[in-house]
Amino acid sequence: MMPLLRLALLLFLATSLNLAALAVADTTRGTGDLGLIIERETGSVLIFSSQERRVLNRVEGLGDLSHASVVFSPDQRFGYVFGRDGGLTKVDMLEAKIEKRIVQAGNSIGGAISDDGALVAVANYEPGGIRVFDARSLDEVANIPAAPEGKGSKALGLEDVPGRKFVFSLWETGETWIADFSAGNVPVITKMQSGDRPYDALVTPDGRYYIAGLFGEDRLAAIDLWQASPVPKPILEGYRRGAKELPVYKMPHLEGWAVAGSRIVLPAVGSHELLWAEVGTFAEIGRTPVHSQPVFAVARPDGRQVWVNFAHPDNDVLQVVDSQTLQVVKEWKAGPAVLHIEFTPRGNEAWVSVRDLNKVQIYDAHTFEKKAELDAKSPSGIFMSARAHRTGF
Amino acid sequence: MMPLLRLALLLFLATSLNLAALAVADTTRGTGDLGLIIERETGSVLIFSSQERRVLNRVEGLGDLSHASVVFSPDQRFGYVFGRDGGLTKVDMLEAKIEKRIVQAGNSIGGAISDDGALVAVANYEPGGIRVFDARSLDEVANIPAAPEGKGSKALGLEDVPGRKFVFSLWETGETWIADFSAGNVPVITKMQSGDRPYDALVTPDGRYYIAGLFGEDRLAAIDLWQASPVPKPILEGYRRGAKELPVYKMPHLEGWAVAGSRIVLPAVGSHELLWAEVGTFAEIGRTPVHSQPVFAVARPDGRQVWVNFAHPDNDVLQVVDSQTLQVVKEWKAGPAVLHIEFTPRGNEAWVSVRDLNKVQIYDAHTFEKKAELDAKSPSGIFMSARAHRTGF
Repeated sequence: MMPLLRLALLLFLATSLNLAALAVADTTRGTGDLGLIIERETGSVLIFSSQERRVLNRVEGLGDLSHASVVFSPDQRFGYVFGRDGGLTKVDMLEAKIEKRIVQAGNSIGGAISDDGALVAVANYEPGGIRVFDARSLDEVANIPAAPEGKGSKALGLEDVPGRKFVFSLWETGETWIADFSAGNVPVITKMQSGDRPYDALVTPDGRYYIAGLFGEDRLAAIDLWQASPVPKPILEGYRRGAKELPVYKMPHLEGWAVAGSRIVLPAVGSHELLWAEVGTFAEIGRTPVHSQPVFAVARPDGRQVWVNFAHPDNDVLQVVDSQTLQVVKEWKAGPAVLHIEFTPRGNEAWVSVRDLNKVQIYDAHTFEKKAELDAKSPSGIFMSARAHRTGF
Repeated sequence: MMPLLRLALLLFLATSLNLAALAVADTTRGTGDLGLIIERETGSVLIFSSQERRVLNRVEGLGDLSHASVVFSPDQRFGYVFGRDGGLTKVDMLEAKIEKRIVQAGNSIGGAISDDGALVAVANYEPGGIRVFDARSLDEVANIPAAPEGKGSKALGLEDVPGRKFVFSLWETGETWIADFSAGNVPVITKMQSGDRPYDALVTPDGRYYIAGLFGEDRLAAIDLWQASPVPKPILEGYRRGAKELPVYKMPHLEGWAVAGSRIVLPAVGSHELLWAEVGTFAEIGRTPVHSQPVFAVARPDGRQVWVNFAHPDNDVLQVVDSQTLQVVKEWKAGPAVLHIEFTPRGNEAWVSVRDLNKVQIYDAHTFEKKAELDAKSPSGIFMSARAHRTGF
């Protein structure tokens, strides 16, 4: 057959055969601009292209996605979605399907992926502790029940740090544990006392400092992981002192805590302000009074500005704060229930989920102009695949 | 036709038609782990997967690739290869082919891509100035000849910074120019005097500071791009004073200058040392005596260690320096003509090109164990696609 005739016949057949058509049309594409939007009410995720500002597909059947989060494989093809119900779902963003799904616990609170992309870890409330899985197969590699008195302790603030290590904290025992998988799949565990009831944590972008928020203390704990024998140190002691006591509508997300240059910005618990501290010394630099109780304070990737959303019932507002002057430079009502903010990796756009509008809004991160909107059912978290290559995201 | 018969015929035709077979077999894959190795003698590039530690394909016909560099599209599918001969080649890493190639000048020295991925800029020695192209089509968007007296000035140290801006310097006039494309495709140009004969530059990872090396001065110039009216400031004045004058075998690569935490490390010109300075104040912190004249000093992504290679004739050695103690912690002979070092994005591996071995070596970046080697013809630069999401790479 003549090549041209072959090609024509091939194209005809491919078009008439959906599977092949899809393979040719949709799966030959880069994955660097892909990402997932959590649709919390329907247990589904949207696969989007940030470059095209377009939803490509919806994948359903991911279980309870209230408080869900996502990490990505190094090739940026697969997203690992951590659901509230203990579900761990590996989503193929090219084929738009669930590659594998397991329910690995009764109640879980987030996860992490090792720096070599080989291990996915999940922090569990019920039965407690963390479980670690092979990123390819989701077969169990390690189970760290964290049950010092036979009863599992709620694990949280789980972060991946360089050298195939995970760091996490335990609510009941007030400890922070390092699980070091550098020698293989049997971890070496280091335990430290961080303080009364850690409730979340973050790691700085270089993976050096792990910082835990403590529900039962008027301070936080910082651990310098570069030390040979890391020790939690109290930081920002008395930061709540003098603050008007307010009911806490929603605990701030410490993973959303942001580092702007050499400064770290923290949403205060139960008061209407952001706290600024110097990374390393963690001395307080200043505070910014904001609209209401902050939930996420997310630095634009260049660190020059920080976007902030707020707890119910003031969660229709966005504020932008300058990291040098510490002043609010912009404020607007984005819509009812602004739940999450995600910047494109180089910070030219901010993507904002507005749950009760059923929209994800796309802003120019420099001019604040709204450039586009995407339809989504009760969207919460927005996760871009470039997170694959960042530490502690 | 029955679906099964259709499928059989489709597969037969696809197999007999190489292009379609390739499209079905190889192009459905993530692109987050892809990258390009420059083969300088043969004008070719290797497409590799860092996750699989494997060469996937070779693409030929890229012209003169001595002193070549690469930037990537936001979807991490396309690499833009800047050749010495003025060639700008857009390589499709999925289809393993040249998507488009233009020869846009007589002699060029590198390029950059805007933060929105829309504009690719090239710095030219001959005829001088920069030219800016549409990243999709490679059609010209802007031509900035930088010819104040009718004669083009050699452009170099071209960097992309947030807000659709490019910054570059001019050898003959000693200027640094900012080309601001935020309002569209007609740039607003700002010109500053940096000093005698800038020869290369770097930008800090947040895009805030642009630092130019100056051939004719015993100092460098730093520009804080966050200022409303940026002004070049002299830094590290007199850094060559007292140093033994040595012939300069190869100018160090300032794009390889690395930031480790809040410290910047600079390979000194013509002497056997690294200089350390504090980002922001740019006060000198200390110096590290090294094996010979450093060429690249590349920080592991966590900033804890810096890998250094050297100029001819001492270019068979690698050294690793601790960014906290400033001491050499490891040294070995990797082989003849170590030309480049590239870390995997989260820093678990270092990839090293050894030209005269015709190998790329892959090291565990924590234990220094050699994990694998890839064959390559006279390899020089190694570029991983995660650079797409970093500023100034």
